[in-house]
Amino acid sequence: MVGAELKLLGTWGSPFAIRARMVLEHKGLSYEYLEEDLSNKSELLLNHNPIYQKVPVLIHGERGICESLVILEYIDENWSKTGPSVLPASPYERAIARFWAVYIDDKILPSVIGLFNVATEETTAKHIANLHAAFEILEEASKKCSAGKDFFGGDSIGYLDMCLGCYLAWIRALERISEAKLLDETKVPLLAEWEKRILTVDCVKKALPSVEKLEVLGREMRAEGYQGSSAN
Amino acid sequence: MVGAELKLLGTWGSPFAIRARMVLEHKGLSYEYLEEDLSNKSELLLNHNPIYQKVPVLIHGERGICESLVILEYIDENWSKTGPSVLPASPYERAIARFWAVYIDDKILPSVIGLFNVATEETTAKHIANLHAAFEILEEASKKCSAGKDFFGGDSIGYLDMCLGCYLAWIRALERISEAKLLDETKVPLLAEWEKRILTVDCVKKALPSVEKLEVLGREMRAEGYQGSSAN
Repeated sequence: MVGAELKLLGTWGSPFAIRARMVLEHKGLSYEYLEEDLSNKSELLLNHNPIYQKVPVLIHGERGICESLVILEYIDENWSKTGPSVLPASPYERAIARFWAVYIDDKILPSVIGLFNVATEETTAKHIANLHAAFEILEEASKKCSAGKDFFGGDSIGYLDMCLGCYLAWIRALERISEAKLLDETKVPLLAEWEKRILTVDCVKKALPSVEKLEVLGREMRAEGYQGSSAN
Repeated sequence: MVGAELKLLGTWGSPFAIRARMVLEHKGLSYEYLEEDLSNKSELLLNHNPIYQKVPVLIHGERGICESLVILEYIDENWSKTGPSVLPASPYERAIARFWAVYIDDKILPSVIGLFNVATEETTAKHIANLHAAFEILEEASKKCSAGKDFFGGDSIGYLDMCLGCYLAWIRALERISEAKLLDETKVPLLAEWEKRILTVDCVKKALPSVEKLEVLGREMRAEGYQGSSAN
């Protein structure tokens, strides 16, 4: 299937679609990006992800691959000799990266979604506290994963950088919307430094929308009473 | 690290620990199984899984690996030349297996946990309907994944067989407890045939507790007002 046409179905604001774009850009693969209208889903989306009917979906030739973490692994494995690798080489480091990837979606996503919803002060405070707690744990994890190097993935970005990096612009947009510090450089200085570095990386710059644009989308979604789900 | 001592921390009734035992037995690896008392967690568990403090934890030498799906991949990768493989060989088939593994934990687990709880008839009916729907979808998936072979993994059991197989004894125990058919051979004949086959496989026989024993545990947990969580 190498060489077959690659398409990515996404929405520009979806962290999971952003994650999939990051890995495609990171590997230097040519692909066609197709923006989905989730209120009027395409036949391609419905045919290739009949179970969840969600983005992102990677279509490689005639085959669909769904779920962002699955897409990252698929791209790394199918193009193992093209471009830089995505997952670490050693089985143990791969296990650690997979563990933290699940942690990130488990802990960051529900509170990111929660902050969109118009909520009581109490609920908002809980989501903010959850994010602070998760970032503090990730700050500690980053010491072990990166072992003093620039990225979770070592000297260049990898799987875990993409898994967390896809949320960055949303985190900063939600800080503006909720008027609260979420990723606080005084509490998580290593993550704040990592954020500065990762924002200069080409594949991240290409995949991540601007905070300003997301802020507008976030305010619109909030005004419309968005109730998100945490499946990806 | 190959050759370093292997320990598995589990509880005998945990589907996730059962899954980890299946893969260790499947690969023919020597390991020490340590039963955890979750009301009085061991130092080993707390040290190696400080984040979730849950079983299973695989300890390889001095290193801990947490989360059952991560453990399956770790064992397959670290002992890639020992015993039969766990994941399929092709990147596409691996992606499909990973997709369905997440689906299984996403759809089967919450209703399995839900059926433990003393609940209204309405809630119970909802969990039963959810399980029926999930099994019907997995019945269809099995046609594609196994492609007419005996197991999801092909001619011998693999990743997805373990991911679903670890729930089998619980499903049958919960049928007795809730007095309802959950995996109905008239509706999902392929899964019912697959169940018969997988129950004859050595690693499954070694890892899976008896339905009778789980029924007793299930009734006890229900009587104590068990409120499970879906993290693994």
